[in-house]
Amino acid sequence: MPKILRLHDFGGPGSLRLDELPSAEPGPGEVRIRVQACSITLDQLAYLNGDGHGAPRPELPARFGYGAAGLVDGLGEGVDPAWAGRAVSVIGPFDQARHGCAGEEAIVPADALVALPEGLDPAQGAALWAPYLTAYALIHLGRLREGDHVALPAGSSTVGLAAIQICRAAGALPIAVTRSGAKVEALLAAGAHAVVRTDTQNYVDEIGRLTGGAGARITFDPIGGDFLAEAAAAAAPGGVLIEYGVLGGTNGRFPVEHVLGKGLTVRGWTVGELVAEPGARRAAVDHVLRRIAEGAYAPRVAARFPLEDAAAAFAQLASGARMGQTVLVTGL
Amino acid sequence: MPKILRLHDFGGPGSLRLDELPSAEPGPGEVRIRVQACSITLDQLAYLNGDGHGAPRPELPARFGYGAAGLVDGLGEGVDPAWAGRAVSVIGPFDQARHGCAGEEAIVPADALVALPEGLDPAQGAALWAPYLTAYALIHLGRLREGDHVALPAGSSTVGLAAIQICRAAGALPIAVTRSGAKVEALLAAGAHAVVRTDTQNYVDEIGRLTGGAGARITFDPIGGDFLAEAAAAAAPGGVLIEYGVLGGTNGRFPVEHVLGKGLTVRGWTVGELVAEPGARRAAVDHVLRRIAEGAYAPRVAARFPLEDAAAAFAQLASGARMGQTVLVTGL
Repeated sequence: MPKILRLHDFGGPGSLRLDELPSAEPGPGEVRIRVQACSITLDQLAYLNGDGHGAPRPELPARFGYGAAGLVDGLGEGVDPAWAGRAVSVIGPFDQARHGCAGEEAIVPADALVALPEGLDPAQGAALWAPYLTAYALIHLGRLREGDHVALPAGSSTVGLAAIQICRAAGALPIAVTRSGAKVEALLAAGAHAVVRTDTQNYVDEIGRLTGGAGARITFDPIGGDFLAEAAAAAAPGGVLIEYGVLGGTNGRFPVEHVLGKGLTVRGWTVGELVAEPGARRAAVDHVLRRIAEGAYAPRVAARFPLEDAAAAFAQLASGARMGQTVLVTGL
Repeated sequence: MPKILRLHDFGGPGSLRLDELPSAEPGPGEVRIRVQACSITLDQLAYLNGDGHGAPRPELPARFGYGAAGLVDGLGEGVDPAWAGRAVSVIGPFDQARHGCAGEEAIVPADALVALPEGLDPAQGAALWAPYLTAYALIHLGRLREGDHVALPAGSSTVGLAAIQICRAAGALPIAVTRSGAKVEALLAAGAHAVVRTDTQNYVDEIGRLTGGAGARITFDPIGGDFLAEAAAAAAPGGVLIEYGVLGGTNGRFPVEHVLGKGLTVRGWTVGELVAEPGARRAAVDHVLRRIAEGAYAPRVAARFPLEDAAAAFAQLASGARMGQTVLVTGL
């Protein structure tokens, strides 16, 4: 029987158990996959702690995980038979309590499947879609252009690393922002045009210096909170701030003096918006697949943990010590 | 000699004097106009008080005013001779200390001229461009469409009234927001689809009710401050908040939960951005002229004061009692 990681109470990763469950049958429009790899994220850590950002808590025991890769081994009614047996990667988000992929088997909507790109191993396939589709906002909302200066707070996150590659491929200049010196060299090696470290440098001054006084045309920011005013101060006239997280909390001031004074656009972004728009999602997926085929995009895996070591995997993820995606692998 | 209103110290309207000055010659690219009407605004009240929103104070004595209409009676070098003698309206903003139009004569950039539209008197010509070009953000940024619900805080302002007409002409549904019952009937008569009065009604609840739960697709807001969170709460998913003023102050919280949760766009806007972009300005001016010719747009003049009564004109403006533009007229 397949082993499935399930949450038994809202006590965080320590409340996960590897349950052996009977194999399930896919319903209409669904497929069963033998999961080879499933990525984990800070959002899922919150989910395991029962903090769903306002979403209702799942019924327990609950599955989790949606950035995954594996082999299709069962088709529900109405699913294209061409999927049978194929190596696939899975695009979230979806109801992870029901379709969660952390385990040896998962039932997922066939709509969530993309063939695993040639040259990627399953762990990379699991590390692919959430970062690149989130960072695709640079193109979808930011109209990324050659020569653009793009500020990337939390630049060493998986989304930040994808954003660096997206900028590079477009001829734009990604400026990664990081809190200490620990990742500066690695960020430059990963393609950052420059790095601002906020423990010793002033963000606004450094962005000004690095852009010749022009400011950042795009700021792709998961922090917000008090940082929003700095991001706006360092933005170019007519610039765009894409806000996609609340790492800095929810009490930041709206920096109206910069937003009006420079005609800034502040846009909220979650990847769910892209995934819910079929045309936009298709364009984004095609773009990412083309860039992977060209060798311009390559998802970065920080560490692989067996399912049994999920708690250790979350601990490593939470430490923020490694650059890249933390992935659970099944050995299948 | 022409009489010119000039500020002699930063003491507000009481520090204006009507000075008789020798007629001036227009420089290259400039024209001289015999001013017939000049609108006044709250921004100019701040200017007269020496509060230039961070701009340097002008040298004294200083002229002011840029929403004007009059007759061209002198051409500088390089100016199209077709302008000679024509009735014109003037598009600001420009350096009002130098080109200020509050008086019987002004020297303005020829670029600022538009022929006075047929059927408008000079006071309406003076009341035209700032409101309609500011509200043109609904089209330029908001991509206003038929059926859109558009929330208009401070809906009884000159910009709000122009916005109501712009919405109506596009088949959109303007919801004017006002602080009391005093202007409700007048706003409905001016074309508002509905009116929310915030002294007795809850803004978010009312917008929800009036939009069938959908929220406002566009909010065109000069208030901001603490109101920004309400504006965001009442916005439709994917909605746009165009912020064009700071009547609510500059310490409002950024309502990230709504901006991320609904994928909102918050855009800062000043009319100077439009005026500085030749293509966009031309499109906006052509649009407004076409709609005036059709009878869809008609600038509303609240009151006309002679130059001598400028202090009384500003007092009436500041009282907020009247709907429409307050205009100084010269009798020319």
